[in-house]
Amino acid sequence: MTDGPVHPTATAVSALRPLPLSDVRLTNGFLGDWQRRNAVRSLPYCVGQLDAAGALVNLRRVTGEADGAFENMWFADSDVYKTLEAAAWQLGSTPDDAELRTFVDTTGALLAKAQDEDGYLNSYRMLVEPDQRWTKLHRSHELYCAGHLIQAAVAAARAGVGAEVVTVARRLADLVVERFGTTDAVDGHPEIETALVELYRVTGHEPYLAQARRFLDLRGRGLLDGERFGPAYLQDHRPVREVTEVTGHVVRQLYLLAGMVDVAVETHDDELMAAAHRLWDDAFGARTYVTGAQGSRHRDEAFGDPYELPPDRAYGETCAAIASFQWNWRMLLATGEPKYADEMERALYNVIAGSTALDGTHFFYSNTLHLRTGHDGSHEDAPSGRLPWYSCACCPPNLARLLASLSGYAATTDHSGLQLHLYAAGTIQTTVDGVEVRAEVRTDYPWDGRVVVALTTDAPLTLSLRVPGWAPAALLDGAPAEVTDGYVRVRRDWSAGATVTLDLPMRPRTVRPHPRIDAVRGCVALARGPLVYALEQADLPEGVTLEDVRIDPAADIVPGRLPDIPVTLTTSGTVERPSSGELYPTEVEPTGEPVELTAIPYFLWGNRTPGPMRVWIPVTTG
Amino acid sequence: MTDGPVHPTATAVSALRPLPLSDVRLTNGFLGDWQRRNAVRSLPYCVGQLDAAGALVNLRRVTGEADGAFENMWFADSDVYKTLEAAAWQLGSTPDDAELRTFVDTTGALLAKAQDEDGYLNSYRMLVEPDQRWTKLHRSHELYCAGHLIQAAVAAARAGVGAEVVTVARRLADLVVERFGTTDAVDGHPEIETALVELYRVTGHEPYLAQARRFLDLRGRGLLDGERFGPAYLQDHRPVREVTEVTGHVVRQLYLLAGMVDVAVETHDDELMAAAHRLWDDAFGARTYVTGAQGSRHRDEAFGDPYELPPDRAYGETCAAIASFQWNWRMLLATGEPKYADEMERALYNVIAGSTALDGTHFFYSNTLHLRTGHDGSHEDAPSGRLPWYSCACCPPNLARLLASLSGYAATTDHSGLQLHLYAAGTIQTTVDGVEVRAEVRTDYPWDGRVVVALTTDAPLTLSLRVPGWAPAALLDGAPAEVTDGYVRVRRDWSAGATVTLDLPMRPRTVRPHPRIDAVRGCVALARGPLVYALEQADLPEGVTLEDVRIDPAADIVPGRLPDIPVTLTTSGTVERPSSGELYPTEVEPTGEPVELTAIPYFLWGNRTPGPMRVWIPVTTG
Repeated sequence: MTDGPVHPTATAVSALRPLPLSDVRLTNGFLGDWQRRNAVRSLPYCVGQLDAAGALVNLRRVTGEADGAFENMWFADSDVYKTLEAAAWQLGSTPDDAELRTFVDTTGALLAKAQDEDGYLNSYRMLVEPDQRWTKLHRSHELYCAGHLIQAAVAAARAGVGAEVVTVARRLADLVVERFGTTDAVDGHPEIETALVELYRVTGHEPYLAQARRFLDLRGRGLLDGERFGPAYLQDHRPVREVTEVTGHVVRQLYLLAGMVDVAVETHDDELMAAAHRLWDDAFGARTYVTGAQGSRHRDEAFGDPYELPPDRAYGETCAAIASFQWNWRMLLATGEPKYADEMERALYNVIAGSTALDGTHFFYSNTLHLRTGHDGSHEDAPSGRLPWYSCACCPPNLARLLASLSGYAATTDHSGLQLHLYAAGTIQTTVDGVEVRAEVRTDYPWDGRVVVALTTDAPLTLSLRVPGWAPAALLDGAPAEVTDGYVRVRRDWSAGATVTLDLPMRPRTVRPHPRIDAVRGCVALARGPLVYALEQADLPEGVTLEDVRIDPAADIVPGRLPDIPVTLTTSGTVERPSSGELYPTEVEPTGEPVELTAIPYFLWGNRTPGPMRVWIPVTTG
Repeated sequence: MTDGPVHPTATAVSALRPLPLSDVRLTNGFLGDWQRRNAVRSLPYCVGQLDAAGALVNLRRVTGEADGAFENMWFADSDVYKTLEAAAWQLGSTPDDAELRTFVDTTGALLAKAQDEDGYLNSYRMLVEPDQRWTKLHRSHELYCAGHLIQAAVAAARAGVGAEVVTVARRLADLVVERFGTTDAVDGHPEIETALVELYRVTGHEPYLAQARRFLDLRGRGLLDGERFGPAYLQDHRPVREVTEVTGHVVRQLYLLAGMVDVAVETHDDELMAAAHRLWDDAFGARTYVTGAQGSRHRDEAFGDPYELPPDRAYGETCAAIASFQWNWRMLLATGEPKYADEMERALYNVIAGSTALDGTHFFYSNTLHLRTGHDGSHEDAPSGRLPWYSCACCPPNLARLLASLSGYAATTDHSGLQLHLYAAGTIQTTVDGVEVRAEVRTDYPWDGRVVVALTTDAPLTLSLRVPGWAPAALLDGAPAEVTDGYVRVRRDWSAGATVTLDLPMRPRTVRPHPRIDAVRGCVALARGPLVYALEQADLPEGVTLEDVRIDPAADIVPGRLPDIPVTLTTSGTVERPSSGELYPTEVEPTGEPVELTAIPYFLWGNRTPGPMRVWIPVTTG
C-alpha cells in the first residue's frame, strides 16, 4: 500500500481521508491518458533535462565527480528533488520501471555522497560561498530546497523505494531541527513547513511537526530582509495568524498556506485554520482567473490588488496552479466542502492542463489568457508558445510530481462511505471502516457528463458524487438528483454490486466576469463542463484579426469537433473594424459584419498553428 | 542670450527654430506658476536631496572629502548632473540666485577634483571595481552618466554659468571620443547620443557629432549583453535604421530616439529620420496612455504589446513622459507638424503635471490611471500617493531640469514669423529674420480657452497659433478661424501693434478608447481642453465605492469648481452594486441607483484625502 501525497495522521482534523495511491487506478480516459503521457514522456524528459540543463551536475561537482563552476539557478537542486518525488510516486504505480528505479537509486547515492557530515546539503551553497550557510535565508532558498528533498523522501518512503533518499532527507531534517529549533529564522520561500509535517506523518517524529509550526509562527516578525519587493512579497509583513489577504509571490504564499493547513489539522489549531479560510476567501473571491490561474503580475510573480486580473498579462505560473491544487486538496480533506474540489477541477482542466503541450515535452511557465496580435514573444517570461525548458525550470518537474500522484486526488473516504471528487475512468479498490470496497468508474469526462459507477461492497455505504459548482443540476439514474452540500449521496446495499449513473449537464454556457474585474469588462467567456474555451486566430477566416472579433452573447452555442479536439463550441459574432485609427477618438462607430466563431478548449491552445488567442471575448456593441 | 535645450545648428534640417530661453518669460499663469514653484520649491529641494540622499557624497568619496562605501544607485551621479542642468537653466532666467550659483560652482569644483587625470569620471566605477571601467556597458550606465554631465555642461555653457562644469564635461567627452572612436561599443542606457550632439552644437567640435552617430549605428549589432530582459529591452535587437516598433525600457527607447533625431537633422540623414517617424507612429498610434504616459509594464519599465494599456498597472514613468516631451519637441522643430506639439501638451498637462504634488516636493515615479480600492501601496513601485523621494531618484531632478527650461518649448520662429505651440501667459521678445518682435500673451489656459496675443514688430510677419488636435474648431477675433495644418495663421502688418484673440472651445467632452485597448473597454474618460479628468473617491457620496460607479455617456457634463480646483466636471451616473459575490457568474444583473459624479483634473489627483482614483469610467449598463 502506497499512501499518496498529504496523508494526515489518525488524530488530525480531517473530515475526509485520502485513499492510498495504490488503491486508485486511472484507466483509459482524460486523466488516465494524461497520467500515462506524464509517465512515458514528461517524466523521462525531466530526468534527461536534469543532466542536459545541469541541475544534477552541480551535485556531482560537490562530490568531485564533475568539474566546473556551479551553473543554473541557485535553487536548481529543487529541480532534482521534484523529479525524484515524481519518480517515487510513479514507481508506486509502476514499480517495474527499471530506468526510473535506477534514476532514484543513483540519485540517492549521489545525494548521500554529496551530503556533508553534519547533514547539510545544498550544492549552490557548498560550491559558492560555503561559509555563508543559512545566513541569507531571505533569498538563498536553502530551506526551500531542503523541503523539496524532504517531499521526495516522503514519496519514496510511501512508495517503498529510494531508501537512501529517505536517509539523506532525514539527516538534513534533523540538522534543520537542530539548527533552527532555538534560533529564530524563516526561509524567504516557504516549502519546508509542509514538507516537515509530511515527514512527521511518515516518521511519527514530533520535532518535525514542532519545527514546522515554529517556522510558521516566526513569520511576520521582521526576520527576513525584504530586499527588492518588500516583506509582503515574502509573506513576512504580518504574522500568519493575523493576515487577511494573500500577498506577494503566489507560489510562496500558496506553499505557506499548505503548511498552515497541515500544521493546523495536526495540532487542532483553529486560529491557524481560520487564517487559511480567510485567505482562501480572498484568493478565490477576488484574485483568481477563470482558468484557475493565480498571479496577475509579472514583475514580482505576485497576486495583484483585488480584481486586478488582466488576461493579457496574466502571470498564472504553472507552479502556482499546482500549489493551488495542493492547497485546495488539504482544505477539502480538512472540511469536506466541495468548493475546494471545484477549484481543484478548475485549475486542473484549464491552467494546469494547458501548461503542457500535447507532446508532453513543451511547457508554459506563465499562462496567459490572451496572446495579443503583435505580441513580442521573444522573452521566456511571456513566450508565444510552450518552450522545451526554462532557465528557471521549476514548473516541468512540478507537473511531473503532480501527475505521477494524480490518482491520489480523485476520491476520499469517511466513516459513511466513499466520495468521488474528480471524475475519471478507473478503478478503486479500498476499504471503508475495514470493509472492502470495489468501484469501477466509466466516463468520458470532461467531454461527456455521464459518470457510471459500478460498486460492490458488503456493508451499506454512502457513495457521494460531487456536483460541480458550474452544474445547475444533475440526474441520478435518469431522474433529477437531490444535491446535498454539493454532492449526490447514494446510500444503498451494494453487496450484490450495483451501478449508478450520474449525468452532469454539459450545455455550453457563457461566463461573465465580476463587474470589478475591469480588464475584461464587456466580455464573456465560453465554457462547457469544467472546461473554459478560447478563440484562436487559427480558427478565424482569413483577413479577420482576433482583436476585431465580437461575440453575440445571446446566440446559440453549438458543440462540434475538429481533429484532435473532441468538443469545439461554435457560435455567432461580428467583426468590428475600428472606424478611426485614432487611439482616443471622441466617437467610435465600428462597422460589423457577421462571423462564425469556433472556440476550442483553453488547455489545447497553441498546439496547432501558433498565433493569437483569447479567452475573454468582447460582446457585440451593435 | 541663453539658448535653450535643443538648439540645432544653422545647417540642420529644421522647419522651425527654437527661441533662446531668455527671449521668453512666463508670467502669472499655469505654466509660469509651475515654473516658479519649481524654482522656489522643487529645485532647491532636489539640491538638498543630493546631500541628504547621498548622491553628492559619493563624489566626495572619490576626492577623499567623505568616508564610507559607495551608496545609492550605481548611476546616482546622474541625479547630480540633472540637478546641475536644472540649476544652469534656472540661472539663465534668474541669474541673481546666489544659492543656486554657489551650488553650481561648488559642484563644478568637486567634479573637477574628482575627475581622473585622463578625464574619466564616474563615482561608482571609481569607488567600486575601479579596474572595470567601460567593461560592463550593458548595465554600468557609465556613458549614460557621462551624457547627463554633458547635458548639464550644455546648459551651463548656454546660460553662461559653471565654467568648470563645462571643462570637466568636455574632458570626459574627449575621453569618450578617444576611447570609443575606434572601439565598437554602445551603452545599455542611451543618453550619450543626444548629449554629444548638443555638445557639438555648443562647441562646433565635429568629432562629438560623429561619435553620436557612431553610437547609433553600432546598436543592434549584438555588442550588449542582453542579460535579464533581452536585447529588445536595450534597443539592441535590430539596427536603429531598421526598427519598426518601439521596444523595451521606455526611457531608454525615447532618449535613443531623441539622439536619432538630433543626428538625423544635423547630418541630413533621411533614413534615420524615417526610422524615427516609424517609431513615432507606433508609439503614439498604439502604446500611449490618454494622459500621455508611456510604459505599460512594471516588470521591465517597458512598452508593452500594441494596445496593451492597462490603467491600473500603467507604469508611465515620469522620466518617460519627460523624454516623450523632449523627443516630440525635436520632431516638431524638424518638421513643423503640430501633432508633435499636441503630444507635448498632452504629456505636460496630464502625466508630467500630475507627477508632482502641489507642494512641489512629493513625486510620482510611476503614474497610474487607476488606483484601485484595496490597493496595496506599500511599495514605492506603485505607491498610493506621491513620495518625498525614491531609492532610484531619476524623476525629481528630471522634472526640475524640464521645468527650469520650460519657456524654451513654448514658441518657435521660421522665416515667415512666430509660432505659438504652448499657450501660457508671458512675454516674448525675440527676432525673426533679424527683425525685433515683441509679443505679450494673456491667457488663463488651460482653464480658459481664450488666448490674447498683443504683437508688435516692424515687418510683416505671420503669427501662427496652434489649434490642438482635441479642438474641433477655433474662433479668431470672434469669427470662425481658418485652420491650416493645425495652425491659425495670421499675417498682418503689426508695426502699430495689434492684438488677436484666439478662442479654443472648452466644452467638456467624453473620450473613447480605441476598440483594441481591451483594458478600458466599455469605459469613457472625461476631458476638457488639454486636461484629462479623473474621479476620486474623495468626491463620491459616503458608502459608494469607486469601482461600482458607472457613467452615463449621454448625460450633460457641467463645469464647476472646488477649493484649489479651478474647473471640475459634474455629470450623472449610477452606482451598480454587483448582484452576486461570485467571481465568474453566468449572469450579472447589477442594480443601479443614480449618483452625481464630479471629476477633477487628473493632474490634481492625490492632493486631498488619499484614496482610489480612476480616469476611465465604465458606462452604465442599464
